[in-house]
Amino acid sequence: MPNTDIVITPEGLLEHWQGHRRVTRRMIEAFPEKELFEYSIGGMRAFAVLATEMLTMAVPIARGVASGAWTGDDSKPKTKAELLELWDAATVELDRVWKTIPPHRFQEVDTAFGQWKGTGIWMILYAIDNEIHHRGQGYVYLRSLGIEPPAFYDRS
Amino acid sequence: MPNTDIVITPEGLLEHWQGHRRVTRRMIEAFPEKELFEYSIGGMRAFAVLATEMLTMAVPIARGVASGAWTGDDSKPKTKAELLELWDAATVELDRVWKTIPPHRFQEVDTAFGQWKGTGIWMILYAIDNEIHHRGQGYVYLRSLGIEPPAFYDRS
Repeated sequence: MPNTDIVITPEGLLEHWQGHRRVTRRMIEAFPEKELFEYSIGGMRAFAVLATEMLTMAVPIARGVASGAWTGDDSKPKTKAELLELWDAATVELDRVWKTIPPHRFQEVDTAFGQWKGTGIWMILYAIDNEIHHRGQGYVYLRSLGIEPPAFYDRS
Repeated sequence: MPNTDIVITPEGLLEHWQGHRRVTRRMIEAFPEKELFEYSIGGMRAFAVLATEMLTMAVPIARGVASGAWTGDDSKPKTKAELLELWDAATVELDRVWKTIPPHRFQEVDTAFGQWKGTGIWMILYAIDNEIHHRGQGYVYLRSLGIEPPAFYDRS
């Protein structure tokens, strides 16, 4: 009998994350090439740098939670096309790696990248929240450039 | 026997949310009074307006998921002290209401406020994500004012 008292399923959480990643992809697309890599407010990082940080977290964290092996990603995309290509590759890889996460790993404590100790779900939520947080920063960049950002609520 | 294969417990999700709410509270405190209610970039809403929106979502959504009764909150704080007072009251109320959520309501579909159809967990994650999203916007406001925002990673 399926347990209907669960908060969220692994599949539901992946879909939630990929929905956010689709919004972030539209953000990357919305930036003009130059501003994507150079525009800043208040000394903060350009959106391409933030999006690259998201890439260094998504698949590496899912892989670490799945396998206990914490290996980074040092991609340094230099163009919007390159960034979008890496983004799309990570979308496919995240789907693939996610299916290999043993269910007990969400609540199991591990040390991510030899530095951050916490449960698997803590690490995954950190990656998702970090993406939403920095993407919110990107919304201000776009608005201040007079560009309409993609809708936050549309996860399609 | 406890199920160790769950992604997150109701208690774990509440603690995650309240951790984010503690960061947002520090954001409210970090804004000077005038800028909290008036400062904007790119025509976006002032941080007090965004924080007030968060208040209209947090407890009302938790209450709706708990009870199926969708009633709003039309508080309109006019000072930082008033906003912080409402914030703290919502912190206590969220803890209280959360304990009354029947476990099956997280996966049950309902129509929030007569308008948005989805599962309880979808609505709750929407409220949390909306808070992170708009708070990220607030980080840019503070940085552009030359004010160091609270650390994103510190949920204490």
